[in-house]
Amino acid sequence: MRSLTDYLYFNTKTRRAFINITGEVEARVRDSGILEGLCLVNAMHITASVFINDDESGLHQDFEEFLESLAPHEPVARYRHNLTGEDNGDAHIKRTIMGREVVVAVTGGKLDLGPWEQIFYGEFDGLRRKRVLIKIIGE
Amino acid sequence: MRSLTDYLYFNTKTRRAFINITGEVEARVRDSGILEGLCLVNAMHITASVFINDDESGLHQDFEEFLESLAPHEPVARYRHNLTGEDNGDAHIKRTIMGREVVVAVTGGKLDLGPWEQIFYGEFDGLRRKRVLIKIIGE
Amino acid sequence: MRSLTDYLYFNTKTRRAFINITGEVEARVRDSGILEGLCLVNAMHITASVFINDDESGLHQDFEEFLESLAPHEPVARYRHNLTGEDNGDAHIKRTIMGREVVVAVTGGKLDLGPWEQIFYGEFDGLRRKRVLIKIIGE
Repeated sequence: MRSLTDYLYFNTKTRRAFINITGEVEARVRDSGILEGLCLVNAMHITASVFINDDESGLHQDFEEFLESLAPHEPVARYRHNLTGEDNGDAHIKRTIMGREVVVAVTGGKLDLGPWEQIFYGEFDGLRRKRVLIKIIGE
Repeated sequence: MRSLTDYLYFNTKTRRAFINITGEVEARVRDSGILEGLCLVNAMHITASVFINDDESGLHQDFEEFLESLAPHEPVARYRHNLTGEDNGDAHIKRTIMGREVVVAVTGGKLDLGPWEQIFYGEFDGLRRKRVLIKIIGE
Repeated sequence: MRSLTDYLYFNTKTRRAFINITGEVEARVRDSGILEGLCLVNAMHITASVFINDDESGLHQDFEEFLESLAPHEPVARYRHNLTGEDNGDAHIKRTIMGREVVVAVTGGKLDLGPWEQIFYGEFDGLRRKRVLIKIIGE
């Protein structure tokens, strides 16, 4: 069995952002030399997400509005978590809805993605340095 | 390490559907000859889901109503994504709530599922051909 | 390839509970002797969840309120599933939002978690015996 472990770093200039990381993940699969296996990609922070969907800006606005309607950022006093001095209670819930991680098959040395599947980093409490983990195992 | 890769195809006659695929996945585990490992099952389309829950029709109606209340199909103009000419903005959100994938342990050559765990394909924008990926790795 | 399979048992004294199981999972990783691999942790029951977030009690109350607002326990007649004689229709939906499983990388013989990542068992229909599966594969 072979494995590769790597980390991506983000420091978004806005509180919330969706960033397409498919190319970065594909590059790690190539580097690993693994032909058949599984690739885990996960946010290492609990107010960020890794998810798969379409790279279409209208859809991303729909997600933004949907998440904000379910767990609005303000008033920050809405969340007990914010009594700790944080203002990111909403971000913990938004990330939960979007998901922490994806597992993607590696087949023939490539990510085995459907035609519109793209891997995104979802930031819900940005303006600080954060990490995503990529772990590939296989042969 | 051994691996098996296979695909299931769907073309539902309704826009939305839940289809039990546990037997299909179990058959692939048997075919693989893998005794100990992990089995990934994921939708390859971004308006469909693979999830685990109970095979109970009342529950499936509850899911349908819950998802429709959170992200109604109509009015289609509610979603910016539909400005692209699509009418499936709701389906992208519904699939996000239900999840893209499941990872199931393979133990002693079988899916290591709890007593009521059944694997479902969730379709939210049907009437077209779609794929699910099954990837099993282990030994 | 090596693997370890183990199960954790729960019988909560309340209908709903969040229990930090990070230490239990870490102990299994140590027992496995696996240095590089993947660790799956999943609820084996369809009204329970395994998820990763912060171990902060205010946040857990925020999750509780958020889930109860989306899928209230009462009136139980709200859910068709409860026509089967169950009263846990809400728990199936709550668990779906929080997720069934997490996959965590094992790096250098340890769970490769971010600074605040903690693994939780989420119970939404307790007062009965339930199981969580831990499966680690790697080398």
